[in-house]
Amino acid sequence: MASTDKPTDPEYNKGAPPPPPPPSATVNCFAFDVTLRVLLFAAALTAVVVIVTSDQTKFTVPLGIREVKFKHSPAFVYFVVALSVAGLYSIITTLASLSVIWKPNLSTKFLLHFAFWDVLILGLVASATGTAGGVAYVGLKGNKHVGWLKICNNYDKFCQHLAGSLAVSLFASVVLVLLVWLSVYSLHGRIPK
Amino acid sequence: MASTDKPTDPEYNKGAPPPPPPPSATVNCFAFDVTLRVLLFAAALTAVVVIVTSDQTKFTVPLGIREVKFKHSPAFVYFVVALSVAGLYSIITTLASLSVIWKPNLSTKFLLHFAFWDVLILGLVASATGTAGGVAYVGLKGNKHVGWLKICNNYDKFCQHLAGSLAVSLFASVVLVLLVWLSVYSLHGRIPK
Repeated sequence: MASTDKPTDPEYNKGAPPPPPPPSATVNCFAFDVTLRVLLFAAALTAVVVIVTSDQTKFTVPLGIREVKFKHSPAFVYFVVALSVAGLYSIITTLASLSVIWKPNLSTKFLLHFAFWDVLILGLVASATGTAGGVAYVGLKGNKHVGWLKICNNYDKFCQHLAGSLAVSLFASVVLVLLVWLSVYSLHGRIPK
Repeated sequence: MASTDKPTDPEYNKGAPPPPPPPSATVNCFAFDVTLRVLLFAAALTAVVVIVTSDQTKFTVPLGIREVKFKHSPAFVYFVVALSVAGLYSIITTLASLSVIWKPNLSTKFLLHFAFWDVLILGLVASATGTAGGVAYVGLKGNKHVGWLKICNNYDKFCQHLAGSLAVSLFASVVLVLLVWLSVYSLHGRIPK
């Protein structure tokens, strides 16, 4: 509130009556932003590691030795690619968000770009979670109408890994929604009333 | 730019030097918003109608008369529910967006709420598209590793309807991304430079 007394940079002139966001608010907002992005990275990494380590080999009575791998289903491959992209994206944007804490001048521009990209990554992660979840559900319950047998009764470790990975990926989607909300709310807070 | 000479309403005081958005810009932004929401409604309705009318009965040689229905798969039921919610949401928000064109005072508040809710609906539609797409892909290609046979060679009408519905739902996701972008961009445009 008391930051109107030093209009150092004419490009970011803060001498106008409507209060610009105080620097502490910017830092707080981006500190929360960084926290969420670190959580997103952790979630994406966990989801990828858990599904990649899900392969299971088992001897079953009518079929002999059979192996299930996540690579056998394009849905799970798409899931791994999407979550890897989200993980990589979270690293880049965590660094960008940290840079704003050190240089708050550019915060409005960064909020705009973050909101734009976060929405795209949300679409990617949500659709990947849906894709893998849909196929995993068929594996869990089967579909007697079209003769698809469930496989989770035989391959428990595989399905447990899938379930864990899907739960973490759902959490990543929630984090992405929160990230977009945070950017939008911060942008809204900068508009003079 | 020249609207500083009539501070009529103290609640929405525009007497400050940073330029408030000109009314024409607000109307243009919300006109585009309404267009996108009408498109979203059309897409959601089309996707639901196309998948609901996909049921197919067919006589096949080894199995006799068999019927495939979208209701047999929880993934497609979820898809129908999600797209119906999106369609209903698009009606409500189209009316809300129209109300802003007539009463631009509340535009900033509406932009904030639109962005918040659009993100949630995007997550819903994207995940539903993924879920239905994942299961539809198994129907198209099968999965020989776990013994799931493809069904699209027998049930062509069913699969054509699925493909059409999924394409339209993907379009709805893109419209939702554009809607969030529009809200974010409009909010950003109201921040004094």
